[in-house]
Amino acid sequence: MKFICSRDQLLTGVNIVSKAVSTKTTLPILECILVEAMNHQIKLTANDMELGIETIIDGDILEEGKIALEAKLFSEIIRKLPSSDVTVDVADNFQTKITCEKAKFNIMGKPGDDFSYLPVIEKNQCISLSQFTLKELIRQTIFSISDNENNKLMTGELFEVNNNKLTVVSLDGHRISIRNTELKGENDPVKVVVPGKTLSDISKILSGELEDLVQIYFTEKHILFEMDKTKVVSRLLEGEYYRISRMLSSDYETKIVINKKELYNCIDRATLLIKESDKRPIILTVSDESLELEVSTSIGSMKEETEIHKEGKDIMIGFNPKFLMDALRVIDDEEITIYMVNPKAPCFIKDENETYVYLILPVNFNRAGN
Amino acid sequence: MKFICSRDQLLTGVNIVSKAVSTKTTLPILECILVEAMNHQIKLTANDMELGIETIIDGDILEEGKIALEAKLFSEIIRKLPSSDVTVDVADNFQTKITCEKAKFNIMGKPGDDFSYLPVIEKNQCISLSQFTLKELIRQTIFSISDNENNKLMTGELFEVNNNKLTVVSLDGHRISIRNTELKGENDPVKVVVPGKTLSDISKILSGELEDLVQIYFTEKHILFEMDKTKVVSRLLEGEYYRISRMLSSDYETKIVINKKELYNCIDRATLLIKESDKRPIILTVSDESLELEVSTSIGSMKEETEIHKEGKDIMIGFNPKFLMDALRVIDDEEITIYMVNPKAPCFIKDENETYVYLILPVNFNRAGN
Repeated sequence: MKFICSRDQLLTGVNIVSKAVSTKTTLPILECILVEAMNHQIKLTANDMELGIETIIDGDILEEGKIALEAKLFSEIIRKLPSSDVTVDVADNFQTKITCEKAKFNIMGKPGDDFSYLPVIEKNQCISLSQFTLKELIRQTIFSISDNENNKLMTGELFEVNNNKLTVVSLDGHRISIRNTELKGENDPVKVVVPGKTLSDISKILSGELEDLVQIYFTEKHILFEMDKTKVVSRLLEGEYYRISRMLSSDYETKIVINKKELYNCIDRATLLIKESDKRPIILTVSDESLELEVSTSIGSMKEETEIHKEGKDIMIGFNPKFLMDALRVIDDEEITIYMVNPKAPCFIKDENETYVYLILPVNFNRAGN
Repeated sequence: MKFICSRDQLLTGVNIVSKAVSTKTTLPILECILVEAMNHQIKLTANDMELGIETIIDGDILEEGKIALEAKLFSEIIRKLPSSDVTVDVADNFQTKITCEKAKFNIMGKPGDDFSYLPVIEKNQCISLSQFTLKELIRQTIFSISDNENNKLMTGELFEVNNNKLTVVSLDGHRISIRNTELKGENDPVKVVVPGKTLSDISKILSGELEDLVQIYFTEKHILFEMDKTKVVSRLLEGEYYRISRMLSSDYETKIVINKKELYNCIDRATLLIKESDKRPIILTVSDESLELEVSTSIGSMKEETEIHKEGKDIMIGFNPKFLMDALRVIDDEEITIYMVNPKAPCFIKDENETYVYLILPVNFNRAGN
C-alpha cells in the first residue's frame, strides 16, 4: 500500500477514529487503527467491539492495500509532523515508512486482515438532526447517568422517538434529566438505550455547527451515527428502560422563579464548606420574596439570601448541592422556575414547554443531622 | 479586628502569600495566613519557615487586630465571593465573619500570636532589576536544577554579582545553564545559592513587566525580594557552589549554526520513538551542509536532515534529546550556534556575548547499544 495525503486531514481523521481505540485490552489489534487505501478512497477505522468509527480522507492512492498501525504511536507521529504532504508506504513485511518533508519514520505495522470490521447496519429507521442539537442534547443530560455498572441501563441514555419529537433521558436514582427536541417530518417510533461512553465520544466528534447534519439509524442491537465522512456504530444497551412518565407530576405546592446565575453562584460558595465525605445538604428556605440558602458543617457556616418570585406555600427543603448545580449549569435560561411539593418529594426545574425537565430528589436534612 | 476591603485586592493578596503556605506540615499554624489590621494597613503573611511572603492591601480598618486563617479555606471563600466589598470581622473567640453583599460566611480562626513572623533582613547589600528580567532569568535556568535532595546545592541556583553583572547558574550533573545580565551601577560582590522552590514561587508572583522593579537584598543566610507591596524572604542553601569556570572552555573542533525551531521540532518528533525507560540517545551526524538526526529503538526508527552552516570537522555525537530540547525551548534567538569538540566532550550552545551558555554532556551511543 502507498498513498499521499495532507498531514492535517490525516491528523483530523486519526483524531476522530482514535475515540474508538481500545485502551484496556489484551488484544493488540484493538489498539490499532486500520488504514485502507482502496477503491479510490483512504479509510481509517477503529473498533473496540462496543464502539466502531470509520472516516474517509482525501489523498492519492499509488498502490492499494491495508495495514493496522498502533493508534497511539501513529497519531503522535502524524501530530508532530509539519503541516505538509505525508506519504505512507507499506512493504510486504508490514514495515511502514511515513515520510513528510525531510522527516522519515519507520515503524512496524500488523496485517490488516486481523482487524474486525464494523457491523453492517440496515438503514430502515432514520432520524436527522443538526450536529449542534445532538451535541447539546448530550451535554445537557450526560451528567446524570450512573457510573455504577451494576445498573447497566443507568449507564446509558434513553433515546425515544415519537413522530416529530425526540426525547433524551438519563437518570441515576437521585435525579432524572430530560430534554425534548423537535424532529422534521413523521418518524417511526423508536425506544433504545445508548451507552453513555458512546455519547460522550460522539459528542467530541460532532462539529457543534447548526448547518452540519447527523443521520441516526436504529436497529435492534445497534445505533449508527452518520456525518459527512464519518460513521460511528455502537452497540445498544439491552433491557427495558425505566418508566419515566409515572415519576413525573405537574402538581406542586410551591413555585419559585429565580435568577439562575445568582442561585448557581450562591450554591457554589456554599459547597466550599462541604467535604465530599460528609454529604451535608444545603437547606433552602423559601418565604414570600426571598430564598435563604444555608449550610452548616464542621468547617463553618454560610447563609445567603436571593430574591425570588413565589407562588404557593413557604417551604424548607434540603438538597445535595452538586445535583442542583449540575442541572443549573446546562440550562441556558436566565431565569428558571422550580416546582416543589414538600420536603420529601422531588423538585422539578422545567421550562413552560418542557423542552427540559430536571427532577431532583431532596435530602432529609433532619436525618442528615441538622 | 474588623476591616473592609475590595474582594479583588484581597484575592490578589491571598494568592500571592499562598505560595508560602506549607502544604506538608504537622503544624496547623503553618497552613494559615496571618491577617493583620494595624497602623492603617492590612497585611497578609504566610511563612513555611523556608520561605516567607507578606503583602499589603488597601482597606478601611474599623478595629485593629490579627487572626490566623486556614489558607486554603480562606482563599477559596474569597475567590468565590462576588467582586464587591468584603468585611472581615473577628470576635474575641476567633470566630471570623466574612461578609460580601448577601453572602455571610462564619469560620473559625486561630490566635495570630502563634504565628511565626518573617525574619528581619538587614538591608546592606542590594541589587535592583526589572521584574521581567528576573522572571526570564529564572525561566531560562530553572529546568536544569536537580531534584535529588542528596545534592542539596544542585537543587538551588547560584546568584553571583560582580560589579555590574549578575550571573545565574543551575546544574544537575549532566548539563549547566548560565544566564548573564547587566546591572545598573557598581555593586558589591555576592555569591549565594537560592533554593529552586523559592525561585519558582517568586517567578509566579513577579509581574513580568519591564517597568516594574524588584530589589534583591542579600545577607549571609537569607535573600529578600522586595516589590511594590510584597516582600519575599527565603533561606539560602549553605555550602560552596561548584566552580563553573573550569568546566567552561572556548575551544572547539566543530561549530554549527542552525535554525532553532527546525532543530527543536525535529528532536521533538524523534522523541516519539523513545520510551522514558530505555534512555536511547538521538544521534547527530554533522557533515558539510547538513545535520542528520537519527534515532532507532524497539518502537521504530526515524531519520531527518536539517540545513546548517558548519565550520571545522565533521562529527557524530549522541545526546539525551530532553536536555537539548530544554535548552532550545528557553532560547529566544532564531538561529543558534552549537560548539562541539568530540563525541565525549560537552557541547556548548551560546551566543556571541555569552548572555547565555548551555553546556550539555553527550551520551556514549556505542555503549547505549547502537
